[in-house]
Amino acid sequence: MNLILLKSDQVAHGRARLGAARARHIRHVLGKGVGDRVRIGVVGLGVGHARLLALDDAGASLEVPDPATLDPAPAPAPHALALALPRPPMLRRVLQAAASMGVKDIHVFHAARVERSFWHSHALDPEQVHAQLVLGLEQARDCVLPRVTWSRGFRAFVDEGLPRLAGGDPILVADGAGAPCPADLVRRHVIVVGPEGGLVPHEIERLQAAGAHAVSLGPRALRVEHAVPAVLARLCPIPAVRAGVHGAGAP
Amino acid sequence: MNLILLKSDQVAHGRARLGAARARHIRHVLGKGVGDRVRIGVVGLGVGHARLLALDDAGASLEVPDPATLDPAPAPAPHALALALPRPPMLRRVLQAAASMGVKDIHVFHAARVERSFWHSHALDPEQVHAQLVLGLEQARDCVLPRVTWSRGFRAFVDEGLPRLAGGDPILVADGAGAPCPADLVRRHVIVVGPEGGLVPHEIERLQAAGAHAVSLGPRALRVEHAVPAVLARLCPIPAVRAGVHGAGAP
Repeated sequence: MNLILLKSDQVAHGRARLGAARARHIRHVLGKGVGDRVRIGVVGLGVGHARLLALDDAGASLEVPDPATLDPAPAPAPHALALALPRPPMLRRVLQAAASMGVKDIHVFHAARVERSFWHSHALDPEQVHAQLVLGLEQARDCVLPRVTWSRGFRAFVDEGLPRLAGGDPILVADGAGAPCPADLVRRHVIVVGPEGGLVPHEIERLQAAGAHAVSLGPRALRVEHAVPAVLARLCPIPAVRAGVHGAGAP
Repeated sequence: MNLILLKSDQVAHGRARLGAARARHIRHVLGKGVGDRVRIGVVGLGVGHARLLALDDAGASLEVPDPATLDPAPAPAPHALALALPRPPMLRRVLQAAASMGVKDIHVFHAARVERSFWHSHALDPEQVHAQLVLGLEQARDCVLPRVTWSRGFRAFVDEGLPRLAGGDPILVADGAGAPCPADLVRRHVIVVGPEGGLVPHEIERLQAAGAHAVSLGPRALRVEHAVPAVLARLCPIPAVRAGVHGAGAP
């Protein structure tokens, strides 16, 4: 946890109260005490530092600066991600990864090689999705929650979900053969990542008919949890790093 | 499992015998039966298809083609990876990821922000490391095992492990500030990835004194399990995909 993300309604009169889990993390993992500063973000408002007013294993109290004085979140990734529903433990990890890499538009869709039972998993519950997104944002010191939307059928995805997500922007399908995946696209694209077993030919044809271009990550079949960071890392330009801000997880 | 990796001494007179775990996977996950073909690789020799001669939940017997008729493994990644020892569950996942992305030289080193206790984990046992590498190779339909070496001190890494790994090739440190990480480097590089908390300034100075160049993945702090696929995906050129070979996990 490189930042503690607060909801805006958690902050009142410049104070925020944290529960036991976060208090213990601050105390025992970050090794902080009363009077120390900790990195915080306020959802949708900005990131900065708060001062610890009280801390024990039951909770913590923070002095939070005026939202107007907070720093902006790191630049978002320019691209949207459309992801075939992976199995639940992988969904959790991929949501975290996408959030930490700055994706703000995530659409999850059904495909032939997605097991129908995955759609009944608690990993899709809004609170569980939210929790994974928060973990990803806290990792990357971001405070802007991604929007996650769903298409429970492949036809609904191609006919409605995908055009709405794209809004006229170009669409790339990272699944199988195609031109080598380019690097550093500045213009917003929608990146479609298929299921663990791949999209079936009929689905790729439907996507191409909808205007999508196939791009290849090479002949190696990657797990979805590796394909997502891989394709995002290639397609997202790397923003300049300001002095004193580090890409690694230093607190 | 997109391929079943056999050790060469497991194949005798064109036959190989598999244990219960793999037999059950072939039967119940891949849905194959006697007479069907399954993708196989023979460590260090090549990849191809074998025919199922017998199959039940206790084991399977395969007819394996002459090694001389096997196809070559997919092209390796040109780069070597030097990785600060992550916590054990992440080490397992990162070894799998690096193997599936074609890295053939993996060096794991100690750094200030690596917990000493990680070095006593069973995840470092040769059999456990081997098992993760095999999972990565099977995912990517590869048959060439990576070499994994270790530096249990940071000084030993900079003075011995790193120069031996580099063999005069350029070294990049993906940790914090630096020039934006380039894309598609054809020449072999060593890529150094720091620990979850980042390398400390003194360590970065030591690496730079040893000739390493800092490259940045941007201001977002990524978890090591995402940073490794991200940096490999940027730095490794994408080989052309032959017709009929798909980048996704289709069996």
